[in-house]
Amino acid sequence: MKIGKVIDNVWATRKVNSLNGYKFLVIELENGEKIVACDNIGAGEGDRVLVTLGSGARKGTYEENVPIDSLVIGIIDGIGGGNE
Amino acid sequence: MKIGKVIDNVWATRKVNSLNGYKFLVIELENGEKIVACDNIGAGEGDRVLVTLGSGARKGTYEENVPIDSLVIGIIDGIGGGNE
Amino acid sequence: MKIGKVIDNVWATRKVNSLNGYKFLVIELENGEKIVACDNIGAGEGDRVLVTLGSGARKGTYEENVPIDSLVIGIIDGIGGGNE
Amino acid sequence: MKIGKVIDNVWATRKVNSLNGYKFLVIELENGEKIVACDNIGAGEGDRVLVTLGSGARKGTYEENVPIDSLVIGIIDGIGGGNE
Amino acid sequence: MKIGKVIDNVWATRKVNSLNGYKFLVIELENGEKIVACDNIGAGEGDRVLVTLGSGARKGTYEENVPIDSLVIGIIDGIGGGNE
Repeated sequence: MKIGKVIDNVWATRKVNSLNGYKFLVIELENGEKIVACDNIGAGEGDRVLVTLGSGARKGTYEENVPIDSLVIGIIDGIGGGNE
Repeated sequence: MKIGKVIDNVWATRKVNSLNGYKFLVIELENGEKIVACDNIGAGEGDRVLVTLGSGARKGTYEENVPIDSLVIGIIDGIGGGNE
Repeated sequence: MKIGKVIDNVWATRKVNSLNGYKFLVIELENGEKIVACDNIGAGEGDRVLVTLGSGARKGTYEENVPIDSLVIGIIDGIGGGNE
Repeated sequence: MKIGKVIDNVWATRKVNSLNGYKFLVIELENGEKIVACDNIGAGEGDRVLVTLGSGARKGTYEENVPIDSLVIGIIDGIGGGNE
Repeated sequence: MKIGKVIDNVWATRKVNSLNGYKFLVIELENGEKIVACDNIGAGEGDRVLVTLGSGARKGTYEENVPIDSLVIGIIDGIGGGNE
């Protein structure tokens, strides 16, 4: 998974039918790369998030036949050593 | 997913049989990289699009056994904050 | 998919059994990167080709249980705008 | 697989339900890139580990429907020639 | 697939159970990147090999539920033009 920050929303009226209702977020990864990920846990702009890429992204949706390749799987509370 | 812009079409007469009828578009991604993606929602040159990479690309086609790895899943209307 | 040019063949006598009979081509992608792809449509040196990467590569073979990750899916005739 | 070093833990209270109970580690790969991987063999900070990326990561969990894309599959004892 | 050279072995006593018996090789790819791949055709240090990445790697093992993402699929005899 990758750590990134939600920086924007993407709006697309014309899209593959099975994607109706899905929310698309622009995520800036730690290396500066920008990707677009789906979200169904309520992440919003400014949140630091964990993103799963590839086929694993579909395992976190309610139906696995959606044509997506990235999903926000968690909103990060903190990063730190095990004894903190 | 990645954001890119449709810049060209690709023509290939000799191809794997299951790809007959598929349209191939050259997409320039935001980082300058060029890829070729299939399209079945009518994207054309100049459109800004969302592209799914990997096995997810096949989930947006009518038959899943086509040997493709990228698909245009949406034509972008806008990118912006949630309260716009 | 990626656009590349066939520049060489690869010979490997000792290989995983299920790959007997498969042809391996060295492909130089547009960004200069070299990969090895299987081919079953007769691409040869100097041809400009479309290559599918990942699990999609196996969808274009006669049996899906071969351990490959890239396949030549088309020989490119031309690249150009929709109104040409 | 990639070789990396465990450098931190990631905490995320709000996450996709199926991930409850999973441990997330920040791994610094040999090329300096940082990723987050799940772990179920007890790797801790400072350990040098082998990480599997992509769909293979889920093959090492107890249930394959978790939305992850990387897993610690081994803690490295040593790297060296065959005749050592 | 990628072309690389076997440069080392990796030893890991503590690992995911299903990997017992698997051999792990450090491979230096042509672009200098180092990865770790499994091998079951007897490749050794100094061999130039073909490596399959991703889900295809598991298609060349005896059981598909191992958490790996790269496999040596051939030992390269030569690279050259079709009429050599």
